[in-house]
Amino acid sequence: MKIVALGGGTGLSTLLRGLKLFSDVDVTAVVTVTDEGGSSGIIREELGVLPPGDVRNNIVALAENESLMAQIMNYRFNEGQTFKNHSLGNLIIAALTKITGSFAMAVEKVSDTLAVKGTVLPVTEDTIRLVATMESGEEVMGETQIVKRRSKIVDLHLDSVAHPFPKVIEAISKCDVIVLGPGSLYTSIIPNLMVNGVKEAMKGKPTILIANLMTQPGETNGFSLKDHIITVERYLGYSLDRVISNSEIIPYDILQRYNVEGSEQVLTMVGDEKVVSFPMVKSEVDPNDGKEKVRHDPIKLAASVRKIAKELIGD
Amino acid sequence: MKIVALGGGTGLSTLLRGLKLFSDVDVTAVVTVTDEGGSSGIIREELGVLPPGDVRNNIVALAENESLMAQIMNYRFNEGQTFKNHSLGNLIIAALTKITGSFAMAVEKVSDTLAVKGTVLPVTEDTIRLVATMESGEEVMGETQIVKRRSKIVDLHLDSVAHPFPKVIEAISKCDVIVLGPGSLYTSIIPNLMVNGVKEAMKGKPTILIANLMTQPGETNGFSLKDHIITVERYLGYSLDRVISNSEIIPYDILQRYNVEGSEQVLTMVGDEKVVSFPMVKSEVDPNDGKEKVRHDPIKLAASVRKIAKELIGD
Repeated sequence: MKIVALGGGTGLSTLLRGLKLFSDVDVTAVVTVTDEGGSSGIIREELGVLPPGDVRNNIVALAENESLMAQIMNYRFNEGQTFKNHSLGNLIIAALTKITGSFAMAVEKVSDTLAVKGTVLPVTEDTIRLVATMESGEEVMGETQIVKRRSKIVDLHLDSVAHPFPKVIEAISKCDVIVLGPGSLYTSIIPNLMVNGVKEAMKGKPTILIANLMTQPGETNGFSLKDHIITVERYLGYSLDRVISNSEIIPYDILQRYNVEGSEQVLTMVGDEKVVSFPMVKSEVDPNDGKEKVRHDPIKLAASVRKIAKELIGD
Repeated sequence: MKIVALGGGTGLSTLLRGLKLFSDVDVTAVVTVTDEGGSSGIIREELGVLPPGDVRNNIVALAENESLMAQIMNYRFNEGQTFKNHSLGNLIIAALTKITGSFAMAVEKVSDTLAVKGTVLPVTEDTIRLVATMESGEEVMGETQIVKRRSKIVDLHLDSVAHPFPKVIEAISKCDVIVLGPGSLYTSIIPNLMVNGVKEAMKGKPTILIANLMTQPGETNGFSLKDHIITVERYLGYSLDRVISNSEIIPYDILQRYNVEGSEQVLTMVGDEKVVSFPMVKSEVDPNDGKEKVRHDPIKLAASVRKIAKELIGD
């Protein structure tokens, strides 16, 4: 079963970590390139290459965890004023982009070296930025600034026309099922749909949205599951076939901490037959701040996706 | 034939590039770790790992040139204020030192990944600095400062006791011939001899010095070949068996430019039967400044070393 999964960094890589364990699933991850923050943002600005962080996360998710190259690709410097917080894998992808002259080729070379199970593709090789119209009418440029505003996004577009990386269109046209997410609605999922030809190629393919576990401050404040679905369908231009949501209640103490930061659980809903729900929450300590975070459990998520995908294609 | 070659970065790597082409030569490069300049110096200072540049140069010299990993190890960023002039290979060795907890292990892992022909070893895993007493009596600390003084070095020592990396002593004790250089006299060759137990292990092994082509401003101003030999023998504590020097006259226009910078050709000498000379100069454009530089021709140099080594061991 050929699955194309579109998204960004962390969320999509969680799905891939699960999917790679199923030998009957052949996955292609199509990854946004609109990140402007952190190590990726500095590399983008100073070296003029696409932000490598999201593709790196997904490549490593599909690699054997223990290999030396995977450790190198995952290494982040944690000292020294020059290198602190920079990801070595990001620098390797940037250098390979300069050596080969192509970001997509760099991604392919790193994937080959890591012997990944599946394929990771940047959605486009064009340098693009997100532009959001906020509720106030203000136009905000760039992913980092948009999220910082912490206000409602009423419209999102790209600052220039983006051409799809050809293998993305090819992978979509050959796949059995398309999966959107999990990932930030406006900064990971929707940007992929705005690259020329992507949603047109997707049309007619069974499409599943993985709903987020929690709302994201600055992107989806107060969004219900229905709001998520409506928003994705608005940018997609047609209806989703299935929405996979989480049925498990998140522990009260974790939820309380999220609430303080403006983030609420996205509860599943009844009365819409395309929504299916499964328990698939896993809490883990975030190494960045030592706090317990809720994440999709990679195996439960992948098993749910595989089950629904099989139903959709009548397998 | 087992050869142990001791030296630093550029010069030693030239010898290795030649030696790897001879299938009957098994080479171990023992490399200084006293560099404090450039990318290596910043990594040393900010990340607290040994300077990786010299070992990196030698690993790459022994690798297949065309491999992707060799290109990655050799890549140097040439833009962006954060990364400009930093070597990606240096950063990889630094990260692997953090991951494995050992600089020597990092060197071994990178060597394995590049499938190098031979072995590269740091002479010590101790963090050491050079201390020089200049002609004026002033004590100068650190390789960069010592060379900057551009005055005569009357004595050189390490700032603290350095223990040899155990495999260095093992390689020396098992080898047939030892080669010193080519390389900077005070900052590449002699520092190896000051690590505890190294010259003691070398004693009794046939030892060849590769003489430099040119004197180095700040290290060997005005040094004749005889001065080079006397200086090395002083730190070694016993006599060299052979000195391989260049017999070819360097083109006048190049020589003139070197002379302006205080660098003169080291001419070969007669009357000392341990001195043997061969034509082995190659001029090449330095990518850093676009100027034509004189270098040892790797193949001519390696062939000369192999010939003399065979004579010494009676092969």
